[in-house]
Amino acid sequence: MREIVVFSGSAHPDLAESICSYLGVKLSPTTITRFSNGCLQVQLNENCRETDVFIIQPLVPPVHEHLMELLQMLDAARGASASRVTAVIPYYGYARSDKKAAPRISIAGRLTADLLVTAGANRVLTMTLHAPQVHGFFSVPVDHLEALDILAGYFRDRDLSNTVVVSPDFGRAKDAAYFARLLGVPVAAGNKQRISDTEVVIDTIVGDVDGKDAIVLDEEIATGGSVLTLLDKLGERGVERKSVVCTHGLFTGSAPERFSARSDVTEIVTTDTVSAYRDNGIPNLHVLSVASLLGEAMRRIHVGESVSSLFAGPEWATTS
Amino acid sequence: MREIVVFSGSAHPDLAESICSYLGVKLSPTTITRFSNGCLQVQLNENCRETDVFIIQPLVPPVHEHLMELLQMLDAARGASASRVTAVIPYYGYARSDKKAAPRISIAGRLTADLLVTAGANRVLTMTLHAPQVHGFFSVPVDHLEALDILAGYFRDRDLSNTVVVSPDFGRAKDAAYFARLLGVPVAAGNKQRISDTEVVIDTIVGDVDGKDAIVLDEEIATGGSVLTLLDKLGERGVERKSVVCTHGLFTGSAPERFSARSDVTEIVTTDTVSAYRDNGIPNLHVLSVASLLGEAMRRIHVGESVSSLFAGPEWATTS
Amino acid sequence: MREIVVFSGSAHPDLAESICSYLGVKLSPTTITRFSNGCLQVQLNENCRETDVFIIQPLVPPVHEHLMELLQMLDAARGASASRVTAVIPYYGYARSDKKAAPRISIAGRLTADLLVTAGANRVLTMTLHAPQVHGFFSVPVDHLEALDILAGYFRDRDLSNTVVVSPDFGRAKDAAYFARLLGVPVAAGNKQRISDTEVVIDTIVGDVDGKDAIVLDEEIATGGSVLTLLDKLGERGVERKSVVCTHGLFTGSAPERFSARSDVTEIVTTDTVSAYRDNGIPNLHVLSVASLLGEAMRRIHVGESVSSLFAGPEWATTS
Amino acid sequence: MREIVVFSGSAHPDLAESICSYLGVKLSPTTITRFSNGCLQVQLNENCRETDVFIIQPLVPPVHEHLMELLQMLDAARGASASRVTAVIPYYGYARSDKKAAPRISIAGRLTADLLVTAGANRVLTMTLHAPQVHGFFSVPVDHLEALDILAGYFRDRDLSNTVVVSPDFGRAKDAAYFARLLGVPVAAGNKQRISDTEVVIDTIVGDVDGKDAIVLDEEIATGGSVLTLLDKLGERGVERKSVVCTHGLFTGSAPERFSARSDVTEIVTTDTVSAYRDNGIPNLHVLSVASLLGEAMRRIHVGESVSSLFAGPEWATTS
Amino acid sequence: MREIVVFSGSAHPDLAESICSYLGVKLSPTTITRFSNGCLQVQLNENCRETDVFIIQPLVPPVHEHLMELLQMLDAARGASASRVTAVIPYYGYARSDKKAAPRISIAGRLTADLLVTAGANRVLTMTLHAPQVHGFFSVPVDHLEALDILAGYFRDRDLSNTVVVSPDFGRAKDAAYFARLLGVPVAAGNKQRISDTEVVIDTIVGDVDGKDAIVLDEEIATGGSVLTLLDKLGERGVERKSVVCTHGLFTGSAPERFSARSDVTEIVTTDTVSAYRDNGIPNLHVLSVASLLGEAMRRIHVGESVSSLFAGPEWATTS
Amino acid sequence: MREIVVFSGSAHPDLAESICSYLGVKLSPTTITRFSNGCLQVQLNENCRETDVFIIQPLVPPVHEHLMELLQMLDAARGASASRVTAVIPYYGYARSDKKAAPRISIAGRLTADLLVTAGANRVLTMTLHAPQVHGFFSVPVDHLEALDILAGYFRDRDLSNTVVVSPDFGRAKDAAYFARLLGVPVAAGNKQRISDTEVVIDTIVGDVDGKDAIVLDEEIATGGSVLTLLDKLGERGVERKSVVCTHGLFTGSAPERFSARSDVTEIVTTDTVSAYRDNGIPNLHVLSVASLLGEAMRRIHVGESVSSLFAGPEWATTS
Repeated sequence: MREIVVFSGSAHPDLAESICSYLGVKLSPTTITRFSNGCLQVQLNENCRETDVFIIQPLVPPVHEHLMELLQMLDAARGASASRVTAVIPYYGYARSDKKAAPRISIAGRLTADLLVTAGANRVLTMTLHAPQVHGFFSVPVDHLEALDILAGYFRDRDLSNTVVVSPDFGRAKDAAYFARLLGVPVAAGNKQRISDTEVVIDTIVGDVDGKDAIVLDEEIATGGSVLTLLDKLGERGVERKSVVCTHGLFTGSAPERFSARSDVTEIVTTDTVSAYRDNGIPNLHVLSVASLLGEAMRRIHVGESVSSLFAGPEWATTS
Repeated sequence: MREIVVFSGSAHPDLAESICSYLGVKLSPTTITRFSNGCLQVQLNENCRETDVFIIQPLVPPVHEHLMELLQMLDAARGASASRVTAVIPYYGYARSDKKAAPRISIAGRLTADLLVTAGANRVLTMTLHAPQVHGFFSVPVDHLEALDILAGYFRDRDLSNTVVVSPDFGRAKDAAYFARLLGVPVAAGNKQRISDTEVVIDTIVGDVDGKDAIVLDEEIATGGSVLTLLDKLGERGVERKSVVCTHGLFTGSAPERFSARSDVTEIVTTDTVSAYRDNGIPNLHVLSVASLLGEAMRRIHVGESVSSLFAGPEWATTS
Repeated sequence: MREIVVFSGSAHPDLAESICSYLGVKLSPTTITRFSNGCLQVQLNENCRETDVFIIQPLVPPVHEHLMELLQMLDAARGASASRVTAVIPYYGYARSDKKAAPRISIAGRLTADLLVTAGANRVLTMTLHAPQVHGFFSVPVDHLEALDILAGYFRDRDLSNTVVVSPDFGRAKDAAYFARLLGVPVAAGNKQRISDTEVVIDTIVGDVDGKDAIVLDEEIATGGSVLTLLDKLGERGVERKSVVCTHGLFTGSAPERFSARSDVTEIVTTDTVSAYRDNGIPNLHVLSVASLLGEAMRRIHVGESVSSLFAGPEWATTS
Repeated sequence: MREIVVFSGSAHPDLAESICSYLGVKLSPTTITRFSNGCLQVQLNENCRETDVFIIQPLVPPVHEHLMELLQMLDAARGASASRVTAVIPYYGYARSDKKAAPRISIAGRLTADLLVTAGANRVLTMTLHAPQVHGFFSVPVDHLEALDILAGYFRDRDLSNTVVVSPDFGRAKDAAYFARLLGVPVAAGNKQRISDTEVVIDTIVGDVDGKDAIVLDEEIATGGSVLTLLDKLGERGVERKSVVCTHGLFTGSAPERFSARSDVTEIVTTDTVSAYRDNGIPNLHVLSVASLLGEAMRRIHVGESVSSLFAGPEWATTS
Repeated sequence: MREIVVFSGSAHPDLAESICSYLGVKLSPTTITRFSNGCLQVQLNENCRETDVFIIQPLVPPVHEHLMELLQMLDAARGASASRVTAVIPYYGYARSDKKAAPRISIAGRLTADLLVTAGANRVLTMTLHAPQVHGFFSVPVDHLEALDILAGYFRDRDLSNTVVVSPDFGRAKDAAYFARLLGVPVAAGNKQRISDTEVVIDTIVGDVDGKDAIVLDEEIATGGSVLTLLDKLGERGVERKSVVCTHGLFTGSAPERFSARSDVTEIVTTDTVSAYRDNGIPNLHVLSVASLLGEAMRRIHVGESVSSLFAGPEWATTS
Repeated sequence: MREIVVFSGSAHPDLAESICSYLGVKLSPTTITRFSNGCLQVQLNENCRETDVFIIQPLVPPVHEHLMELLQMLDAARGASASRVTAVIPYYGYARSDKKAAPRISIAGRLTADLLVTAGANRVLTMTLHAPQVHGFFSVPVDHLEALDILAGYFRDRDLSNTVVVSPDFGRAKDAAYFARLLGVPVAAGNKQRISDTEVVIDTIVGDVDGKDAIVLDEEIATGGSVLTLLDKLGERGVERKSVVCTHGLFTGSAPERFSARSDVTEIVTTDTVSAYRDNGIPNLHVLSVASLLGEAMRRIHVGESVSSLFAGPEWATTS
């Protein structure tokens, strides 16, 4: 059996170490050099010939530095005669650019998928894409994992009899409906209209939330505009206890301050797909690790076992 | 300027004639032969050299006969030295296969997009894809039109003060939210769980519908299972007047009988993207034509004018 | 060594079972679903990761249903991380579309080859292509088997001293010349002109047939027009005993009735590359199985043994 | 309308001049340099930007020098921003490598087609391919012309009442059958078995030739082994007057001497697709020019008129 | 004739304006948005259908932001049905990654070329690549301009009788040899050994420089390490008057300070391929504009005139 | 582990035998046939299924015969289901066509790289490319070996205190600078201007050579024009003892006579990357074998060991 070799870019080496620890292999070193003209050079410091290479890099800010690192590492591994190269992208930020939302723009989620394949990715392992259709943007095999089961586990022992799961966006509430079903509680949603990337208006909440406890679920929190707007709206509807749950906790811009200042939020639950939890200083943040899930998927990919049992998620539950 | 040449497969020649009538060009003839072994041969009976070819074919049942016709016509036009070949697919049925809904299936919406490009499609013109992300499955330029404005026009002069737009699927209600905004009315949604392709359960309706008039909106009606289930559920909630609206009115299986038998449905409004309205015998069916919209898009594609102003739809209104 | 996994589409499961029986492996199950809009979904119900997948599907009527099944299965196997995917197509019907027989048609044999590769076929195993050049339409390795040796075996113990092999088509008589050489008898041919797909005229027979026994050989019989016309012509030339031999016995349209009604045909000999022998009711039909030949080729492909010794056929005998 | 620019490699500049004369354009010059290490450099000495470039080069010996010239010219024209580049290959010698005639060989007709496309050919114009299926080896549009009408014209005013057209190869006699039909005479064929590239045996002639005049037709004569063997066999059958006709008169090896020495051959009729007629010294050689036919096809390709009416040939007459 | 449409990324809008001014067209606007997760979205605010699009973007720091802008603009223009899309990259920084300088690195100059083509570049216009071979990394047509003539013009009226052109790198001195020939003066070179990206040692100067005036020529100055080291070495050899010339004046890191502090440097001559001249505060910096050269090349590309006369440079003078 | 199978074209079977001897495997036979029309057919006479195939062929004159052999062997091995196919090209002559040295020429080094990949090369093993950037012309992994260490070994035990390494070309002297460093001696260079492929002028020698012993180093000697001109120039500067060193000793044209006649050349040192040493009759020619180096690289490629330690060369020493 060909050996497994794992590299990490500079985006989230801690997660890479945790995954290697699960796998029982050493993280192989890389040397990242920046030339005086701003260009990067990434060197893989481990023989790759005929090995099964995994390169771990979530596409967190600075996104394009991390993307170029990843592209060069893929190309380097291919050029170094790796038997197979898998891009492990726990957070694929460009999944949000998933449709022609305005005239004469790139569907950058598809473009980036093509760039990764051009650079040499033979397959991709990722988590919680903004839309499940983004899977179809890739011309190579993708394993698409979900963290909703891990996140639901956090709430399982609680009394949820007065709880409702609320999605900030009525038009994209599949995850919330699935999460509610996992917890056996009802679902509601804000009817969101996006004014710009950072401004949203929620004119109404569709569904019954008055006087209940709310678990607000979004797949990703960056500046947190949608979630914060929804929290306000829920307050107006008499919701006192509010939990916030997301897979990708980026907490960019003023999000750390704004969430830290929020006394009505009981807890914020997220995962370590991105590294932002390290220094954001949000006091009631609970970070659940996806390292074992990713590591187990990599192990199965490597030895050829079925990965599908790791795939439980909203798509498979309702296949409309 | 290169000449425009329009061909039609056998899926919907009436629509092709209507489009040609809008464009003021003659529909060019084809000869479709079936060999004794079941294989097809499609011959284009008009010189294509250096012309701007459009081939019109919605992918309605028998889907794969129509798909193979289209693929052969694309290949024939390319081989005959067409300057550009545009596949006009008013109904792209495989858009429903837009994600990995189960292990070890093809994302057939992506596969079919790749087949079309392999066969020679230089660009695609389509309408109301099941999910807007399917646009990104194509590696060639796509113009994706919406019929919601045409459909909304049907209701504009009415008193809608007691009306609500209802989507059968809480988790996919972006179109309904947009349509409601076009009409200035609120939105609600059934919380649908799909048991199988033809069976769904709607356990609850999220949002306020009691005693209102309902416009049920779905992008496509095949057997109509989701819509019929929702109509029942709405009846239980005291909704008496119900309109049904969809872009793609396929009405397959027993749908014609079931909708014909339905006394509580005031009207069914659809378009002619597919040919099924011809013989389905549903008495209160109103068919709005998209021929002018498609024809105008083809005219602009041909002469190089902007098509984006024809694109108004739920995606551009809310770009989350 | 990676495991072998065999799937079958719905075109000819019996042959797939026979091949698996030869190989000593279990045929892996699939679930084929038709959506209410006519689209198909094929699910492979066996883990494919890192395995050597073979998908068996002759392209018999309904050709395009079977083609789409095959394309989806190839794509699904690739997406499921199969190590290699081989399309086993015992009858490749589109091989008849092998040249530009009229202006502005697709050479659909090449188009279909490209579709198969687009969908994920890494290699192809097929039998008795309409023309050997069709091999060159594929951009992936092809193993092209011949059934002429198996068919010749049927006649080997007979007294063939007064026998002649006759091809219906003077212009395509390579197989007949080879078959005659295998049996040690002379060859003749009808000078066929095709009026349409189902009508042919044979104005003369080139070569000496008067008063002989004839073995009429064609690579495929669909409606059987060419062969039946030749049988009549042979009757006029005093041929009384006539055998009919073909590799692909499709017997479409009225062929079963017409051949059943034919008292001058001693026997019809064919193989099981297609499933039509099952219900066609032709009384004197003899079906020789190619399952062992295909199974042995698959075994050698899997373990990396030479397949070329299975290739004996008219091409290698005369390499003009 | 973009300008037409015509270049010629070193294989047959006379034909290129004749074609340019038909088109009324000047042949654009090239500079072909051989480096001291044997490598070639071809420079196009005319601006190509946005023009419609045609490069004329039959693949005659030395085949690979001529092929590399052509490949470099295609690449140079592409790099020089030609709007379209057409490879005009009046003789495509590798068409004879059209199938897997032995284990572990390249189907070099397909390989060469792929090399031409890799180098930048957007389309191909060729004549009388060894097999019509070779058309399908190309992934770009091909216009495939036939010289049989031109060749038949040579015989039209004669009394052909005692004439038969004879093909050296029973298994590949489609051209001969078509040519016979053009002249209104019967057809016969030698039952050829190829021993090697230059040695063949014709054990019998199928069809009635005794005492007739014969027109022996082959698509190409290189060393002429097949034709010479057939001439002998025809002599044994009492054929006294023999004409020899071929599209591609290569006359390599000892062919000029052997045909010159042949007193029983009334005439040899060929075309100028290749340049070998220049110096071969065969006394009764009649060379018909295809320059007008090629030139007219190029003119139509350039202006976008239908080329199909130039295509009459054996394929379209009988589309089996 | 299709219209020309010019867009600029954010890397050097001044140069884009100058080029548009030369061309007499308006620079078309773009909207560049950064999402809260760090991803970019670039919108082209001008109809592109059937137009000849040029996108101007030198790859200066922040390189990867600018690269992603360019990739998205290319993709957007393609998706918006531009007739042709040319990437105008006056400074292609990744040209320095032109070979396998260490094990297991990417040749990022090739990788980036492939990314640009994947994103939709139909052709590339660039200037003074680090090595002329980088031209061959692109699979699309490249026009590669040189600024050496413009730079030489600066010195032409001077008395250069005691002047020598000096290259910092003996092993890459082709440009210097050409520049010296343009000025009619001798050439010399430092024998450079690179310790790291920013540290070099020049152990000796090969050639006669003692007591002469020196023009130090390098194709690009980033931190300026090589040039500064050479200046010191020249000082030791009695060179008092020193001019510094480069095409790409990036002046990154402490370069502005170090060159400003240098009293022995008479002048620094560069071009505006990059925008760094704006704020670097180097007192004796002379910036020559390449806008007319680029604009003229774009004009010729657009109308289909020969660009080659703009190409004079070291490669064409000596074609070893 | 898959078996290794080695084939050789006709360019240099002796080297192939030496390599096989190093590897301890048998060279597998091929049959090369030339058809009467000048086309080639190469048959691989050993089962290749699932094996690791290496095909050894330096591109020496007749270059294009050898190139076509190689292309067909690559295609044949792929078609025969080799697991991996490596083209071993000890001398890649088209590397000299590495840039756009004149308008409207092909960069044939890139073109040929693309042809090799089209034909089926999965990877390439080569030696001493004319420019290291040519590595980047290939879209498949390349292992690029250097012979400079082997060549330096020849001189290592000598007293080199009065020796200088001289390059014929000031503008391309990286190899000479590296070789000088290996031997611990200074470097100089002729300032060469190329008049044509075979004529050069060296107007001056840059660096100190007077009265020294010179080792003239070039990567390749074909007709030897540059080197012979330099030798004359060195003679004028009082250099008496002159050694000539090159990796690729082609010695084409009158080179053997001219070097044989040269009394001032102490020795000529080259390698066996090409076969020309066999019959050139140069008396003081010393041929060092690279068979072990190539064989060791092939062994490591096969078993998956790092090849990079074999790569020492001028590129890695100075990574500017």
